[in-house]
Amino acid sequence: MKIKSPTLILDEQICRKNIERMAAKAKANECIFRPHFKSHQSIEVGRWFRDYDVSKITVSSVSMAAYFSSDGWKDITIAIPVNVSEIENINKLAKKIQLNLLVDSLEAVEFLNSHLESNVGVFIKVDTGYHRTGIISENYEQMDELVKFFSATKKIDFLGFLTHSGHTYEAKSVTEMRMIYEDAVLKLKLLRERYASQYKNLILSYGDTPSLSTMDEFLGLDEIRPGNFVFYDLMQKNLGVCEFDDIAMSIACPVISKSVERNECVIYGGAVHFSKESSINIFGQRSYGQIVQINDNIINSHEEIHLSTISQEHGIIKLSSAMLQSLKLGDIIYISPIHSCLSANLHKYYLKTTKQKILKYSQ
Amino acid sequence: MKIKSPTLILDEQICRKNIERMAAKAKANECIFRPHFKSHQSIEVGRWFRDYDVSKITVSSVSMAAYFSSDGWKDITIAIPVNVSEIENINKLAKKIQLNLLVDSLEAVEFLNSHLESNVGVFIKVDTGYHRTGIISENYEQMDELVKFFSATKKIDFLGFLTHSGHTYEAKSVTEMRMIYEDAVLKLKLLRERYASQYKNLILSYGDTPSLSTMDEFLGLDEIRPGNFVFYDLMQKNLGVCEFDDIAMSIACPVISKSVERNECVIYGGAVHFSKESSINIFGQRSYGQIVQINDNIINSHEEIHLSTISQEHGIIKLSSAMLQSLKLGDIIYISPIHSCLSANLHKYYLKTTKQKILKYSQ
Repeated sequence: MKIKSPTLILDEQICRKNIERMAAKAKANECIFRPHFKSHQSIEVGRWFRDYDVSKITVSSVSMAAYFSSDGWKDITIAIPVNVSEIENINKLAKKIQLNLLVDSLEAVEFLNSHLESNVGVFIKVDTGYHRTGIISENYEQMDELVKFFSATKKIDFLGFLTHSGHTYEAKSVTEMRMIYEDAVLKLKLLRERYASQYKNLILSYGDTPSLSTMDEFLGLDEIRPGNFVFYDLMQKNLGVCEFDDIAMSIACPVISKSVERNECVIYGGAVHFSKESSINIFGQRSYGQIVQINDNIINSHEEIHLSTISQEHGIIKLSSAMLQSLKLGDIIYISPIHSCLSANLHKYYLKTTKQKILKYSQ
Repeated sequence: MKIKSPTLILDEQICRKNIERMAAKAKANECIFRPHFKSHQSIEVGRWFRDYDVSKITVSSVSMAAYFSSDGWKDITIAIPVNVSEIENINKLAKKIQLNLLVDSLEAVEFLNSHLESNVGVFIKVDTGYHRTGIISENYEQMDELVKFFSATKKIDFLGFLTHSGHTYEAKSVTEMRMIYEDAVLKLKLLRERYASQYKNLILSYGDTPSLSTMDEFLGLDEIRPGNFVFYDLMQKNLGVCEFDDIAMSIACPVISKSVERNECVIYGGAVHFSKESSINIFGQRSYGQIVQINDNIINSHEEIHLSTISQEHGIIKLSSAMLQSLKLGDIIYISPIHSCLSANLHKYYLKTTKQKILKYSQ
């Protein structure tokens, strides 16, 4: 299939290697592997996980839970503080599957208690330092209040404590990542101990690709929820979390313009295909993606040739004059994205390197 | 209709005022008004323009041209250097409508000449200083070469010169914007004069919302192609291009979490609903959007309360403790976006302030 417009290319073999590696690690640590499917948002990619014994998944919205439940997933955690506005659809789903929700306030729990029609699993979202959502791990007053309330509810099954250490994305080294990770796990363990006499099997659930990719021992966690690892991307590579060869996704874009004055080519491919996520490359330049292939030629000097500017549908790439001269209009440039989840979200389908199309969810 | 998840809200009356104002200006200047429909990407919003005598439009892709032609638009310019990879669909469209393409190289023109099956209009894309695409306006050698080639082609109708002064977005003042604008128009006029003896009615076509919104006289331009003006946004407001009350769009998001420790609330609404476009507000803070309304209460201190952090589906807003205390989970916060075109692109439909849904194109 000839590529005619910006197309998201997926290497199934690399995805499977990424899945297999994480599944093996979870197994070695006797952890539930509950991958976050918001990264790929695709029923077909989801099916690949079944080959590695995955039966429990994480998503980020009620509608995404409905999408994956339509393909037979029966145990789904919606890993965002429960959106009470969607109680109607939550009730519909909870009738059919094991649905797990996150709460971080008594207000949310009271709402659920008075509106739930079927049983749901509930995790307390714990803030272990990222400071986005969750009850701060040391706020025992609030924790006690919630746990006490749970004992009096009928439709809420209190499952345990869940955190997302998003601040590992700000870590300056893998060592710093490890410190964040160990700190978070310690905080979760203290919470489990606090309520161990009342609840025997509380689950400690931990997410984030950077720490789970770089750590080998999960230190007594019961469940892991990485998402991005299925594709990885330049952001992860820059963090030291993956190798270049672990990145399973690129975006293929046709050349539409060339400037010999500036040694630049322009691709049909911009913010609506990549997102506006950027990072600083090793040369100190702002980059929206790195060039990995031109037509059939693999490019190895990744860092050097990058997407330096993007607008809505255009992207600019600086090239050597020799490379520019060899380029023709319509040539296809393959670009590794900065943040694969956001790029994936912008496309309706993936094209596998083996040329089959894979449909995906679109919100 | 109760808002349950991140929803793009559109005020039709404001859109119509924005359209009417620009249409009147074009008329007063005896200019063709060919609005860029990539900003709204909606057949229904497109229909509003017909009430202001618009019959010619601009789009940014072949597929978007096909989408609008399906609603009876018969004169469409695809304002991106022609993507030769899509020649098949270009030929299909050119059979049915007046299709206009952009070229900035002999290579593109030669390709069109040997592959076109019906006549198309062609503009030379001129680089008047933005340096994204186009032949540099002073590069007469290349211009001459193209114009000479046109005289020998049969399916290419040479229409004139087209530019987009995207560098007005970098202007520090409206005065600087005017300088960029006048410089670009002068460059276009010189080109028209150069070929006036061969081509009598060459069109000078000019795009970009900042200059066309702030200038009243179009200095002899024949055609204008603004896009963003239909909605405007905070980026335009910060540039001094529009007033706050001209912004026709907001994104309505439910509150899902609150932190009394940090005086913050978290909305269900993130990069997949807003895009990652940001700007610096008057307090020097990075902002991904400004709060304009909470439930039914209009907020007037726009700059102060802003979306300070976003991840894939979460957004964080700092509030006074009094405001935070009055907020309930499920309350709806309306946020003005930084870049309305990119936000619009992420949604499948608009909800009008009068509660009707409007479907839109999704790539």
